[in-house]
Amino acid sequence: MEVVSLRDLERIAKQRTVKDMWDFIDGAAFDEVTKRRNEQKFKELSINPSFLVDIGSRSTKTTILGEEIDFPIMIAPSGGQRQHHPEGELATARGAGMAGTLYALPTASGYSIEEVANVASGPLWFQLYHSADDITENLVVRAKNAGYKAICLTIDTPTAGPKEKDLRNDFRRVSHLHNGSFRDNPEWASRRDIGPRDFADWDITGFRGLTWERLGWLKSLTDLPLVVKGVRTVKDAVMCAENGVDGIVVSNHGGRQIDKTLSSIETLQSIAEAVGNRLEVYLDSGVRRGSDAFIAIALGAKGVFVGRPLFWGLSYDGANGVKLMLDILRSEFDRTMAFCGFTKVSDINSSAVHVPSTWNF
Amino acid sequence: MEVVSLRDLERIAKQRTVKDMWDFIDGAAFDEVTKRRNEQKFKELSINPSFLVDIGSRSTKTTILGEEIDFPIMIAPSGGQRQHHPEGELATARGAGMAGTLYALPTASGYSIEEVANVASGPLWFQLYHSADDITENLVVRAKNAGYKAICLTIDTPTAGPKEKDLRNDFRRVSHLHNGSFRDNPEWASRRDIGPRDFADWDITGFRGLTWERLGWLKSLTDLPLVVKGVRTVKDAVMCAENGVDGIVVSNHGGRQIDKTLSSIETLQSIAEAVGNRLEVYLDSGVRRGSDAFIAIALGAKGVFVGRPLFWGLSYDGANGVKLMLDILRSEFDRTMAFCGFTKVSDINSSAVHVPSTWNF
Amino acid sequence: MEVVSLRDLERIAKQRTVKDMWDFIDGAAFDEVTKRRNEQKFKELSINPSFLVDIGSRSTKTTILGEEIDFPIMIAPSGGQRQHHPEGELATARGAGMAGTLYALPTASGYSIEEVANVASGPLWFQLYHSADDITENLVVRAKNAGYKAICLTIDTPTAGPKEKDLRNDFRRVSHLHNGSFRDNPEWASRRDIGPRDFADWDITGFRGLTWERLGWLKSLTDLPLVVKGVRTVKDAVMCAENGVDGIVVSNHGGRQIDKTLSSIETLQSIAEAVGNRLEVYLDSGVRRGSDAFIAIALGAKGVFVGRPLFWGLSYDGANGVKLMLDILRSEFDRTMAFCGFTKVSDINSSAVHVPSTWNF
Amino acid sequence: MEVVSLRDLERIAKQRTVKDMWDFIDGAAFDEVTKRRNEQKFKELSINPSFLVDIGSRSTKTTILGEEIDFPIMIAPSGGQRQHHPEGELATARGAGMAGTLYALPTASGYSIEEVANVASGPLWFQLYHSADDITENLVVRAKNAGYKAICLTIDTPTAGPKEKDLRNDFRRVSHLHNGSFRDNPEWASRRDIGPRDFADWDITGFRGLTWERLGWLKSLTDLPLVVKGVRTVKDAVMCAENGVDGIVVSNHGGRQIDKTLSSIETLQSIAEAVGNRLEVYLDSGVRRGSDAFIAIALGAKGVFVGRPLFWGLSYDGANGVKLMLDILRSEFDRTMAFCGFTKVSDINSSAVHVPSTWNF
Repeated sequence: MEVVSLRDLERIAKQRTVKDMWDFIDGAAFDEVTKRRNEQKFKELSINPSFLVDIGSRSTKTTILGEEIDFPIMIAPSGGQRQHHPEGELATARGAGMAGTLYALPTASGYSIEEVANVASGPLWFQLYHSADDITENLVVRAKNAGYKAICLTIDTPTAGPKEKDLRNDFRRVSHLHNGSFRDNPEWASRRDIGPRDFADWDITGFRGLTWERLGWLKSLTDLPLVVKGVRTVKDAVMCAENGVDGIVVSNHGGRQIDKTLSSIETLQSIAEAVGNRLEVYLDSGVRRGSDAFIAIALGAKGVFVGRPLFWGLSYDGANGVKLMLDILRSEFDRTMAFCGFTKVSDINSSAVHVPSTWNF
Repeated sequence: MEVVSLRDLERIAKQRTVKDMWDFIDGAAFDEVTKRRNEQKFKELSINPSFLVDIGSRSTKTTILGEEIDFPIMIAPSGGQRQHHPEGELATARGAGMAGTLYALPTASGYSIEEVANVASGPLWFQLYHSADDITENLVVRAKNAGYKAICLTIDTPTAGPKEKDLRNDFRRVSHLHNGSFRDNPEWASRRDIGPRDFADWDITGFRGLTWERLGWLKSLTDLPLVVKGVRTVKDAVMCAENGVDGIVVSNHGGRQIDKTLSSIETLQSIAEAVGNRLEVYLDSGVRRGSDAFIAIALGAKGVFVGRPLFWGLSYDGANGVKLMLDILRSEFDRTMAFCGFTKVSDINSSAVHVPSTWNF
Repeated sequence: MEVVSLRDLERIAKQRTVKDMWDFIDGAAFDEVTKRRNEQKFKELSINPSFLVDIGSRSTKTTILGEEIDFPIMIAPSGGQRQHHPEGELATARGAGMAGTLYALPTASGYSIEEVANVASGPLWFQLYHSADDITENLVVRAKNAGYKAICLTIDTPTAGPKEKDLRNDFRRVSHLHNGSFRDNPEWASRRDIGPRDFADWDITGFRGLTWERLGWLKSLTDLPLVVKGVRTVKDAVMCAENGVDGIVVSNHGGRQIDKTLSSIETLQSIAEAVGNRLEVYLDSGVRRGSDAFIAIALGAKGVFVGRPLFWGLSYDGANGVKLMLDILRSEFDRTMAFCGFTKVSDINSSAVHVPSTWNF
Repeated sequence: MEVVSLRDLERIAKQRTVKDMWDFIDGAAFDEVTKRRNEQKFKELSINPSFLVDIGSRSTKTTILGEEIDFPIMIAPSGGQRQHHPEGELATARGAGMAGTLYALPTASGYSIEEVANVASGPLWFQLYHSADDITENLVVRAKNAGYKAICLTIDTPTAGPKEKDLRNDFRRVSHLHNGSFRDNPEWASRRDIGPRDFADWDITGFRGLTWERLGWLKSLTDLPLVVKGVRTVKDAVMCAENGVDGIVVSNHGGRQIDKTLSSIETLQSIAEAVGNRLEVYLDSGVRRGSDAFIAIALGAKGVFVGRPLFWGLSYDGANGVKLMLDILRSEFDRTMAFCGFTKVSDINSSAVHVPSTWNF
């Protein structure tokens, strides 16, 4: 049995991927302290099983902003999919749909908003990098028209937080494999306010004007729910709740934007408690097992996202590989539910997780 | 001196065992976090000696549900013994008897309940995997008739918790080396409700109906004491006490069923305090030294079980190897008693163990 | 891109430097526990970002004892620069000035107080090893006349705290590359009270008379501000405040003087709280990233110093290498400010840093 | 410079010593957890320096039970010295005297009580393994007559706590190199109550009758002070104080008797506080630096002992090597005093040491 866990997919993907591309996928900012912390802190948490309970009729289904998905593990928006695999975001969207979950398409997609919508069978979100007014409005309106279910605004890139391996490798994103969202507007290519392109151009350009006040304007562009991705503190989470945001992704961008922040899982519980029922809380950064998703949900998340694993799945077998990756996570999540005696996702609660006394949040 | 401690037996057994079988014995679920934690947490505990006490006439004898054994370290029910060594459970039973302690025969034994009883000189328990009514009743009644002293029901396998090394190795249990309990009922072989067989078949089949309510029916089958194995939380332990269970094994199945649960030794003290004198508490998972057994008893256990070490003993010299393994543990346990100034097992208490302040239970 | 972070400069410098010289630069006292602790404790701290804030017009400028510098990362006084690189302190002073920050010239400089002043474009401090009255007075008066902005008295060398690698290597400082401060007074060479020379001579000679009472005499020699370097405890910090000192460097000399003391960053916050506004607090020992500087400032420092990295910069490209090293730190510091939502250095506060609960100060 | 610290002596000794003998010296009981913990816990403690204090006239002298020694680091009683080096205990006694400190001669000495006394220039203690009445009385009276200053009774060997490397090596103590204390009484050789000889004989023989009540008889044999070695808990320490003991050595026998006890340095402070001024407290187990001795004294010890390092010194150069080893420790201790601003040993107190919050005693 070649592939048992995501670790097998990771190993195989690493063998198949050229070093610079692998570093782009796998690397993180500065000394990669946060990346390691993301996984380490999950390891410090333990699960409390509960036996002799009837778990025969359990279900992993849940809803995300009202959309039903088969299990609460979704695909995070991650740039570079088409540079990694020719079918890129199309394959990822197909795989997510086949597995029965949600896919968040990144702004830096190699295929257009509409192309991806055409092949997707599951719910889609559109991840937005804030940019100039006309560009931002264009993207939001097109996502709405194409049937996307939410706008997911990334807030944790106020400036570049270099992935030093990319700099040492002089890694270059191939433009036409990242600008699917912009392809229909060729004149934008010469503008400097277009948002994230190559490393040297990132600094400030697209993000300078993105402040709490700006959220109101964004919300005025569409009636789609607004999800904010990149929340790392109670303070920012509460600000989201107070500014009418519908959901937040507790995320440190997989450690790829500024190093030495806390892991997502460490901060999750205090954030979830602070915002209460005012918005839905999700988590990414460090999820590698279905049990990690279970733990996050026990500590307050409505669902979780995985990023790097989607590239491993693509390497393994395109859309089928993405589906396989998600199937493994779903199976592990289901088993963890079984061992802890839960039959519904909404019943999972913090009694099922042991948090070490040395965590102070 | 070739064999000084169990670590020598382990080393020798590993040399003599083919890789796939070794992985089956040694491996654990998923990332094997719990397996490592089982041993790590024992290392974090320290012993408080007490000197200038007369320990010349000390004894390691104790009783388990009224049966006297020479020392409080017993053999856990572990499937696969006959596949590992041709004499399998017969040798283990002989070795346990020669050493003066109790052996818990697993449902997945290569020899029948009666065959093992015929060669055993020490007390026996029968470990039960819950299955269909007729099968369960058959096993329980036969164990009673064959002179077994208790039924030890395993509860921590509500679904499969894969040992990934076995999956990667495509390891197969050889049926006739595991179905000694069922051999006299050949027609059972075609039934799907027979309980744990191969990995793909495990899921739910045998365990779906095993709930707290079911314990009453089980108890109605026999007047043998009922021991529940696989308790990992105070909640489940208290439920056992309230449901008339006679003993519980605080166990995470050696880390072989669901990963990332707490170590047994971490949870022992709070469980023992919660159940008080309502039932006897035992522990397995991580015991590799007589001092580990001493620590567990100091923190509330009446006795402990070892699992993987029985395979090491079998590898070394069949029944004699099992006896040697137990003799080493007894000697280490005895020395620890001597160093801590105890002359009776029942005097051992928590003042003899230092628990780090970072443990929070 | 060859040089991305200080780690690249360190790696390159190590390749280019003969082993004994490298050990002199890199080594620390006794078992080097404190040296490792300096970096380890920085790793245990985390940064709390703050997004959706307008950080477009931020500035890294600050003032140190009233002198404006472009960013709060300065060069610590470190002996041996001229033995490491022919341009030594001249290159370092040039590099610091080009980068826009302050350089603290060591007593054990290979070039004279005046020679360095002639090439420096940024503010200078003069680091003083206490010695006989006439020598001390001569150095202080010359520094004042040459335009230095403060006297920085090192207090943490009451006796030698051997760097054992230097002893095992029989490493010898080359006199004429370390005695630039004394070169114009050749008759001093035969005196034993001249302060730190070679290891065997260090013990006590120059430092015996340096006590809290002596600070008054020192202050009477000049109207320059007096900074005390080597403060490691609240007690010594409060004594500085009560004795009219203008600034203190919380420092363990990079672990080079006595081992097994706490890291600087551990003790910083309690020291800063204890002295309040009575003097300025700086930190050295362990700063390798701009984020480390940010953390120190959040916990109470007005600025930080780097020592070993100046040697890495010199190795790489003399003054330009020193400037490059500082530019990298400035950029990292600026990015950290941006991610945490600060536009002024003086706004940075302890809410931006997460301190583990296991730290007890 | 070949030898800078004890680590150099250790390295050289290891090169010069046959493996089995090295294992005998270096090894510890069972898994050697306590041996590692002894050194690890010293590493977790930090020193708080104190500068700008006049430390020119400081002294490392102290008194142990009224005897003045030049510095508070002494030589622990350690069997096997003559098997390791032909001059054995004679060389150690000479080295200790040349360095200006105390030597505790072990019962298992290769030279007699009187032979050692004849060559010693420093104070001596006689370490006693309890045995039959006539033997015990003979040893105590001879020690008194030969000018020894105290009887140091070892209590932490109620039974054997095997050093497994010795068992695996089948290491044998050469009788005539260990029975110097008994050589003048050849008829004792055939008696089984003679105390520790080879491993198989240890169990109980000599120690069965050694209880708190027995201490009174021991004290009646002589007016020499009685020191008890092997105290590991507050309970035993208080019992010593209540039974008229003059001094205790907080010791875990270097981890050589029963494993998994706490380190000596962890328990020291609570023991010292519990006994107050009723007796003197010393420490061994883990001292490898003069700073370790300083820390122990700050936390309540009057002095410390080193064991394994004496073998390293013997290997290096007999008596001169022992002296060199002690000189290094004295120098390090003196430097630590200087850095912490102490001029007298009796001034050293707990303010000079930082204990982590995770230690709970």
